[in-house]
Amino acid sequence: MSKIIIGVMGAGEQATQTECDRAYQLGQRIAQAGWVVLTGGRNVGVMDAASRGAKNAGGLTIGILPNAQTPHSSAVDIPIITDMGNARNNINVLSSRVVIACGMGAGTVSEIALALKANKQIILLTDDTLSQKFFNRLAGERIFIAKNVEDAIALTNVIVTKNAF
Amino acid sequence: MSKIIIGVMGAGEQATQTECDRAYQLGQRIAQAGWVVLTGGRNVGVMDAASRGAKNAGGLTIGILPNAQTPHSSAVDIPIITDMGNARNNINVLSSRVVIACGMGAGTVSEIALALKANKQIILLTDDTLSQKFFNRLAGERIFIAKNVEDAIALTNVIVTKNAF
Amino acid sequence: MSKIIIGVMGAGEQATQTECDRAYQLGQRIAQAGWVVLTGGRNVGVMDAASRGAKNAGGLTIGILPNAQTPHSSAVDIPIITDMGNARNNINVLSSRVVIACGMGAGTVSEIALALKANKQIILLTDDTLSQKFFNRLAGERIFIAKNVEDAIALTNVIVTKNAF
Amino acid sequence: MSKIIIGVMGAGEQATQTECDRAYQLGQRIAQAGWVVLTGGRNVGVMDAASRGAKNAGGLTIGILPNAQTPHSSAVDIPIITDMGNARNNINVLSSRVVIACGMGAGTVSEIALALKANKQIILLTDDTLSQKFFNRLAGERIFIAKNVEDAIALTNVIVTKNAF
Repeated sequence: MSKIIIGVMGAGEQATQTECDRAYQLGQRIAQAGWVVLTGGRNVGVMDAASRGAKNAGGLTIGILPNAQTPHSSAVDIPIITDMGNARNNINVLSSRVVIACGMGAGTVSEIALALKANKQIILLTDDTLSQKFFNRLAGERIFIAKNVEDAIALTNVIVTKNAF
Repeated sequence: MSKIIIGVMGAGEQATQTECDRAYQLGQRIAQAGWVVLTGGRNVGVMDAASRGAKNAGGLTIGILPNAQTPHSSAVDIPIITDMGNARNNINVLSSRVVIACGMGAGTVSEIALALKANKQIILLTDDTLSQKFFNRLAGERIFIAKNVEDAIALTNVIVTKNAF
Repeated sequence: MSKIIIGVMGAGEQATQTECDRAYQLGQRIAQAGWVVLTGGRNVGVMDAASRGAKNAGGLTIGILPNAQTPHSSAVDIPIITDMGNARNNINVLSSRVVIACGMGAGTVSEIALALKANKQIILLTDDTLSQKFFNRLAGERIFIAKNVEDAIALTNVIVTKNAF
Repeated sequence: MSKIIIGVMGAGEQATQTECDRAYQLGQRIAQAGWVVLTGGRNVGVMDAASRGAKNAGGLTIGILPNAQTPHSSAVDIPIITDMGNARNNINVLSSRVVIACGMGAGTVSEIALALKANKQIILLTDDTLSQKFFNRLAGERIFIAKNVEDAIALTNVIVTKNAF
């Protein structure tokens, strides 16, 4: 039986300290639940933090890299080299049972939108009310707002259990 | 010298009548300017309307299709079959000198976000102030709000001229 | 009704003079038949020659580029930027009604193989008997050997007519 | 430090019993060496056999799937959903430190060719002398012929050690 993959999406260089802290904790909690962490794989920002958190808790980490030249996080166990640039964002969300958006850069926005196209359920872990409003109106029934890491993990758990197959 | 390609992005089945009317006029005006219209190629909504408008004005039309099974608009001259599903959205924006978003579905949101990742300039032709606010804050310097078709074409003209190379 | 697109596949820097001469003539003949030439779009080898031949005969040319940085042939009217590297080879063959392989580099081999996966009919314009034997055995019923440009165009004509829809 | 990924490429429905037996043993030996097996992920032929062999030996398995609809092998731990059809073959080879071709269908031919484009070293585990001759002439210095599974694993070991970084 294949492992349950949870995608953590977020900014690279532009990620804030709060976003990175949350991503690290998300990685830890996902690993502790026995799930696999999937990110965009780069060695910066949310991608790096989520991968490091998961490794700290003994988890397995996948990084979907834009190309072979981009350095991957040293906390990525399985680097998948796509050579597709930002189009890899579609693979990120398609391969994830649940997509957690941690913060909100342009790449993250594309991932949420592509996840909606793929009928995925998405957890927004962001304090930004404009983003919450924007995505809620776009597809409210599949957007879940998390106030904190605890909340995001609880929501993930509900979705994973409900979608078990 | 290669032709100047203008991308018109927008919803399929969910497109409103206003969006389709605007897309048709955009297609006409783009063709009249001697530019080529590029869309997501399907036979519905903004994609179909923009292509029909361009053909009505004697223009050339490209459709970047998700796969071989999806019917393409009969107004598409050049169907490009990607077999990449929604990841083709990245090709749509990379191949367009200017990206015009006509309306705002999940696919369109992904295209605007991917266009921002690619450092493109994007024209939003939408009356929706929430979308305007959301993208303005995400990347204000590369987002241009158009009030109507006339406005969108004028902005396109400025960007094409400025970026001539 | 969409235009009939004929793909001409072949090497870049490694293309021989004979291959380039044939590609140029293929481009001319395809344009004279009223079809559109599609290539990998680069400014070297078979891609450049086929595009130049088509332009010389007043035709329309599409180039499916690996990324935005790769210079495209000045004879390409419609550069499609994929940012997919060699995976774009799949788009090349999927978008072509008929695939003509002019010579035989590693990229060309991938395109013939991907065209076979997509149930396309492929014309091999090569004097190399080892390649002919290899692909004939792999999928004889869909591989057509052309002795020269004349032959390749005649075969293309048969396939286009038979597959008309 | 990321894990060492070894790609095993081969046919699906068309795979012979010998090819499946070899793929199973390759999977076992790769897992015993502490490496990860990567395949095209489907539940048939070489892909399924290599994954089952690796699981039998307690290894980790990755499957790069063409889309969400295609059933994946029950022996795949990490299904990566690309929605790219056969263009995923490029991801298969880019993500693999060493590519082992076990048998020779059209998909496998595309993977060998794409691996050559990416400057990878490829091990051919096939008794077919025509294929050996064809690829040897295309890129002899990067093609290694294995007579049996033992041989393929020894060659893999040499390449992994030499390319250590």
